[in-house]
Amino acid sequence: MKKIILDAMGGDHAPGATVAGALAALEKSDAIEVVLVGQPEMIEKELGGSTHARLTIRPASEVITMEDSPTMAVRRKKDSSMVVAMNMLRDGQGDAMVSAGSTGALLTAGILIDRCLPGVHRPALTPIIPTLKGPVALIDCGANVDCKPIHLQQFAVMGTAYMKANGCKNPRVGLINIGTEEEKGNELARTVYGLLKEMPLNFIGNVEAREIPAGQADVLVCDAFVGNVTLKLIEGMASSMMTMMKEEFSKKFRFKLAAAVLKPAFRAFKGKMSYSEHGGAPLLGLNHLVIKTHGSAGADAVCSTILQAARLADADVPGIIRSGIAEGGAAFTRE
Amino acid sequence: MKKIILDAMGGDHAPGATVAGALAALEKSDAIEVVLVGQPEMIEKELGGSTHARLTIRPASEVITMEDSPTMAVRRKKDSSMVVAMNMLRDGQGDAMVSAGSTGALLTAGILIDRCLPGVHRPALTPIIPTLKGPVALIDCGANVDCKPIHLQQFAVMGTAYMKANGCKNPRVGLINIGTEEEKGNELARTVYGLLKEMPLNFIGNVEAREIPAGQADVLVCDAFVGNVTLKLIEGMASSMMTMMKEEFSKKFRFKLAAAVLKPAFRAFKGKMSYSEHGGAPLLGLNHLVIKTHGSAGADAVCSTILQAARLADADVPGIIRSGIAEGGAAFTRE
Repeated sequence: MKKIILDAMGGDHAPGATVAGALAALEKSDAIEVVLVGQPEMIEKELGGSTHARLTIRPASEVITMEDSPTMAVRRKKDSSMVVAMNMLRDGQGDAMVSAGSTGALLTAGILIDRCLPGVHRPALTPIIPTLKGPVALIDCGANVDCKPIHLQQFAVMGTAYMKANGCKNPRVGLINIGTEEEKGNELARTVYGLLKEMPLNFIGNVEAREIPAGQADVLVCDAFVGNVTLKLIEGMASSMMTMMKEEFSKKFRFKLAAAVLKPAFRAFKGKMSYSEHGGAPLLGLNHLVIKTHGSAGADAVCSTILQAARLADADVPGIIRSGIAEGGAAFTRE
Repeated sequence: MKKIILDAMGGDHAPGATVAGALAALEKSDAIEVVLVGQPEMIEKELGGSTHARLTIRPASEVITMEDSPTMAVRRKKDSSMVVAMNMLRDGQGDAMVSAGSTGALLTAGILIDRCLPGVHRPALTPIIPTLKGPVALIDCGANVDCKPIHLQQFAVMGTAYMKANGCKNPRVGLINIGTEEEKGNELARTVYGLLKEMPLNFIGNVEAREIPAGQADVLVCDAFVGNVTLKLIEGMASSMMTMMKEEFSKKFRFKLAAAVLKPAFRAFKGKMSYSEHGGAPLLGLNHLVIKTHGSAGADAVCSTILQAARLADADVPGIIRSGIAEGGAAFTRE
């Protein structure tokens, strides 16, 4: 049995989507419990009288919004759903925490309350991107926009641990760079290449952005600036390419007919390209498991993130990272 | 009449593609002359006896290859087609230079031989990317992977000049960043935002990567690391998404039939997404006009790049940049 602590007030559609998502997850799995953290009266209203033996409510009076400054909010809103949930996680009152709230606030709460694993310099937000060869971990897409080489080294270790937990036997680690040769790239990339090739990881070298959608590597290492550009460009390209295609299809009547026949194929394609199909993004490197799901997550996405959290808790991702960092430690340079 | 100096030996398919491209361009426009720079016997062989009143050959015995170190090659291969062509350009023996050769060597030759315009710190390679709202200049995609704020400021000026030459009246300048708010991003992006908003440009603020394919801005400013990731990810997404779709289409017989009907629409879409349709990428900030076309450019791409070079020479892009840099100069911080 895994207990998932859910920030019931986080996200654009909370607490409707979070409560419905929790109920759906409890329906789908007998091996989870869910704690809804938030304003009891709002949660009760969404529950509409339904109860569940494995569902409890933990009251929290405040809510951290997208407009709040992350650091201020975490420090001041002590009774917010996110802060209360993170305190519970730290204190062992659950196996994982899920939130659709502000990424910045969640990172801050993770660092200040749950804290980093021994030896980890900075936690990293690690979404999965869809590629031709399946899911690939992109690390970091969080807050580490100005990185030192050791941060990317640790991302490589944490990403490897995460993909192992996802069932990938010997994750291929690639460094996002602007050329395949060792000497290519900016100062950070060139230094990190030299460090990664000496580490006990399955480092396959640089991966050019052109090759990212082909799925050359299982773990793609980069700073959070490059990670965010990569993640969001993939999202933007998928949607704008569909728009451009639709424009072409509208030009002839027979195109329109053919496009109508292909609708289920386009839907399947869109599903493969969609984030929510791949659940949430874990915040790797903390003492416990924290998973961020999209701010616009609906009940389905919340449900799949809860189930994912239970799977990753089963796999003990923080434990794998802890030993990965300790093992790799010898190879880490001092800052 | 504009005289285009063509590095006849540069590119994967040279001199076949360069010679054929030159002949095609001369066919299409009466207002250009072309000088083929390279090994006369190889060029003559490709010409196969055909001559043209506006076509001349300038002998150059050596070739810079993709394997050459750019700096060494430019310094040592004094009689290479690229170095000879760049010398001719500097000496006013033509209005623009076109090359499909090594980007690194072309940048080096540009900096060492043609040199930067007064006040310009670094030249920038500026490809056009396809978006929903038409062509957008992405600056820099060249060699400036570790940038100071003033470099990006100058890219904004040069990109504006270039898009003006392309017929865009008041180019919207956007800074590629990981959030729309002023305080978002890494140290470089935050500093550059503050500088750009004070400049006499049509600065529209940060552009998130998700919005790039939508064509929010006419000029997208970034360092060359981010530029290369952006450019190549767009290319990679376009090709991998087509592959993913084809997989879906192959799953049912009626999908295959419908996809066959849509073939012309897919072809039109692919054309819109293709680089070569948009010609080459100018190396902005040099004293004269240098245009790089894809290493894999065929005769069609070489032809359209020659015609583009003539248009940009007509518009006097280096002249517009020279005055743009001078005007904006007051706002530039010292390094």
